[in-house]
Amino acid sequence: MARAVLVPLWLCWALGCAAPPNVVLLLMDDMGWGDLGAFGEPSKETPNLDQMASEGMLFLDFYAANPLCSPSRAALLTGRLPVRNGFYTTNAHARNAYTPQDIVGGIQDSEILLPELLKKAGYTNKIIGKWHLGHRPQFHPLKHGFDEWFGSPNCHFGPYDNRALPNIPVYRDWEMIGRYYEDFKIDLRTGEANLTQIYLQEALDFISKQQASQQPFFLYWAIDATHAPVYASKHFLGTSQRGRYGDAVREIDDSVGKILKHLQKLGISENTFVFFTSDNGAALISAPKQGGSNGPFLCGKQTTFEGGMREPAIAWWPGHIPAGSVSRQLGSVMDLFTTSLSLVGLQPPSDRQIDGIDLLPAILQGKLIDRPIFYYRGNEMMAVRVGLYKAHYWTWSNSWEDYSKGIDFCPGQNVSGVTTHLQEEHSTLPLLFHLGRDPGEKYPLSLQLHPSSPAASPTFHVVSWSSEQCQMHIMNPA
Amino acid sequence: MARAVLVPLWLCWALGCAAPPNVVLLLMDDMGWGDLGAFGEPSKETPNLDQMASEGMLFLDFYAANPLCSPSRAALLTGRLPVRNGFYTTNAHARNAYTPQDIVGGIQDSEILLPELLKKAGYTNKIIGKWHLGHRPQFHPLKHGFDEWFGSPNCHFGPYDNRALPNIPVYRDWEMIGRYYEDFKIDLRTGEANLTQIYLQEALDFISKQQASQQPFFLYWAIDATHAPVYASKHFLGTSQRGRYGDAVREIDDSVGKILKHLQKLGISENTFVFFTSDNGAALISAPKQGGSNGPFLCGKQTTFEGGMREPAIAWWPGHIPAGSVSRQLGSVMDLFTTSLSLVGLQPPSDRQIDGIDLLPAILQGKLIDRPIFYYRGNEMMAVRVGLYKAHYWTWSNSWEDYSKGIDFCPGQNVSGVTTHLQEEHSTLPLLFHLGRDPGEKYPLSLQLHPSSPAASPTFHVVSWSSEQCQMHIMNPA
Repeated sequence: MARAVLVPLWLCWALGCAAPPNVVLLLMDDMGWGDLGAFGEPSKETPNLDQMASEGMLFLDFYAANPLCSPSRAALLTGRLPVRNGFYTTNAHARNAYTPQDIVGGIQDSEILLPELLKKAGYTNKIIGKWHLGHRPQFHPLKHGFDEWFGSPNCHFGPYDNRALPNIPVYRDWEMIGRYYEDFKIDLRTGEANLTQIYLQEALDFISKQQASQQPFFLYWAIDATHAPVYASKHFLGTSQRGRYGDAVREIDDSVGKILKHLQKLGISENTFVFFTSDNGAALISAPKQGGSNGPFLCGKQTTFEGGMREPAIAWWPGHIPAGSVSRQLGSVMDLFTTSLSLVGLQPPSDRQIDGIDLLPAILQGKLIDRPIFYYRGNEMMAVRVGLYKAHYWTWSNSWEDYSKGIDFCPGQNVSGVTTHLQEEHSTLPLLFHLGRDPGEKYPLSLQLHPSSPAASPTFHVVSWSSEQCQMHIMNPA
Repeated sequence: MARAVLVPLWLCWALGCAAPPNVVLLLMDDMGWGDLGAFGEPSKETPNLDQMASEGMLFLDFYAANPLCSPSRAALLTGRLPVRNGFYTTNAHARNAYTPQDIVGGIQDSEILLPELLKKAGYTNKIIGKWHLGHRPQFHPLKHGFDEWFGSPNCHFGPYDNRALPNIPVYRDWEMIGRYYEDFKIDLRTGEANLTQIYLQEALDFISKQQASQQPFFLYWAIDATHAPVYASKHFLGTSQRGRYGDAVREIDDSVGKILKHLQKLGISENTFVFFTSDNGAALISAPKQGGSNGPFLCGKQTTFEGGMREPAIAWWPGHIPAGSVSRQLGSVMDLFTTSLSLVGLQPPSDRQIDGIDLLPAILQGKLIDRPIFYYRGNEMMAVRVGLYKAHYWTWSNSWEDYSKGIDFCPGQNVSGVTTHLQEEHSTLPLLFHLGRDPGEKYPLSLQLHPSSPAASPTFHVVSWSSEQCQMHIMNPA
């Protein structure tokens, strides 16, 4: 560990002074910031994840790259915003890109994915669970750097009639080995499905195999039990105070504990970097039975309020990360791309814009790197966070039409002029919040472009703003 | 510790096998469930309180006895609901009792306060901070069991003109030694006041004195820095991401850390039971600048939603309480009365109804004691919690009249038919919530008195209900 502080890790790996670490990314589906005990879930039913945090580093300000799964996942694996990697829509304003079963698009060959780069460094790469970057053969994960796959191109939606729409297929590598609801049972009535157990066993087996072969590995464990319709295996059903959603969380918590213990048992925990996070905020449209919690934050999935994009996040790497540490670094799932490369001693591609940053200085040395967070819906940048300030250029929850049908992205919450059902533009005078004093985005600050006098409450100049360059500077004259 | 498990503590003390422990109650003012890092505050700025939790026991389901300070404090010290100890109003329906400076009432001589009982067992009792149980001489804390007092009969409201209304006095024992804003400065503009430092020093000095004299003690540390107008001393001002309220919390966090370290340094931590909690939920009418956070819960102070009465709570007693434990025991500030007596080996008075229960089986042996929680406003029982179910018999946030003036007990929150601005009665068919699946009280369960058929979603029989006996039974036929 001392050596890691003295010599940059990539240099150390390059010089051959240690083997590059394995990388395990545990990506949850629709899990919210407030779903873990360590983040204040009132039932505190995640002892393994809480222990992971107490042995590693908790990130308080970690973000999805988009409030919807496909673009967020594409961003994670490319290190690039969805507006760069193509996962956005232009058919209507501020619409997030989703890849339903019958979509013809997917991740482009021109994009360079994390496993493609790791493969060149001798890594074996496996994806377990949900891919979500395209259904057609050219988008198959094994065409984009992964060596192994066990899982599906989409969520476990269904069951379908298998005529107009087939059930979602499940793959082992190139082979389709079955379909959800048919070969992989999900009982929508009881919520019983043993998929998380299958995904867990896949992970344990892969880790064992790699350890035996002494090959470094990248494991992308993208399970989906917390995406509606939520499920858990029989052993966990009915065990949570939180209902079926909580049962799914408990099974995931147990599984993460088993993965970490497996790494320890095999003696490779100090050479395996593990990161736990989620693809977007809790889907409040499915709450409370099928959706999670965004804690004290505003709204949920699909929105660019904090509840839509702030994620639970824990880094774990015994012997390297100080146990029980907490980081206020603004982080993004896109940083997992750049950080993983850095761990391995690789540089990100230089022929394109990479939005993810290397978090290792924050993780290993407790540094705070100055960087903004951009909140997109589709190809519209709705908001920007700089430090503790967040400026909304557009506000929108969902349309009056959808809302009148009972679709509510912000149930029980209503902030006048903020959780708007019309798309409201504030580009001239952004709606400004201080997320330290007001994490729930309930109290917009009055923004004075030219304050006549210093005031007790802070005032702000927006000195430059360019949506093209995705840059904003906020100055506090006080 | 093993002995404490084998022999009831009171029996052990009675048999003389160990000295009875000191009791320290750290009671915060208007601090909310969501204000501590350990409870998910997104800035996580309470390292000392979080460490207290990691060394002790965190209570997730601990409640104030009332959503307002005076009745809640009267209940804590008497172990009795405000409707029994007299701290309620009858001048209007569901109005909480408050003791402004010019009130003529206060705690009755017929009530038996915790320090009165502890004094008989040889304890020296000190209150530091806010009393709030009456201004007139007959209500003075030293007439009700306390041996020492440093503090005030009320909050630090003001400044007043000292003609129509004098500034709030500050007492040392029987002597009025000054007044807020005059002799004890509070700068409302900057928020600077060194009161918490004074209260801290009083606590440290008292503990040192008692330790030196080998006398057991009860310290009731009832500070008020988090009650609007919030304040902090110069060293802490501007240090929090959360603004001035956060500065006050940081100073309190630092002070609690110093008190615990002082106990350890004096070698009496294993013989001192410490409990940290608050008198009611965060005052959202003062948020965000002067009010705290109730985390994911609904509304705040003055209301009987979870945000009004669920409190942060930590028990700390090294060598006795298993470090890092978490309790789901339904607890109340009234239990601190009965639990403190139990610690000392005393029985609660048998000539009256005591509502507080002995939490020692929960704290020392991890037991779960079946008991309800009653939510009162004034003399109206608004709601009852039994297990994870909460039934509202009355709903009310505040009046339309107050709300139209901008007084909002539930800012940014609006649950149709729940956060009502009219007092709405549901006694015939209580509004039922499941606090595990829905801690935010956003999704009332449909209550079917006579379900015709078993359904996938649970249904409930209210089999008996008596407001007089304050009892309710809920059966789940599924």
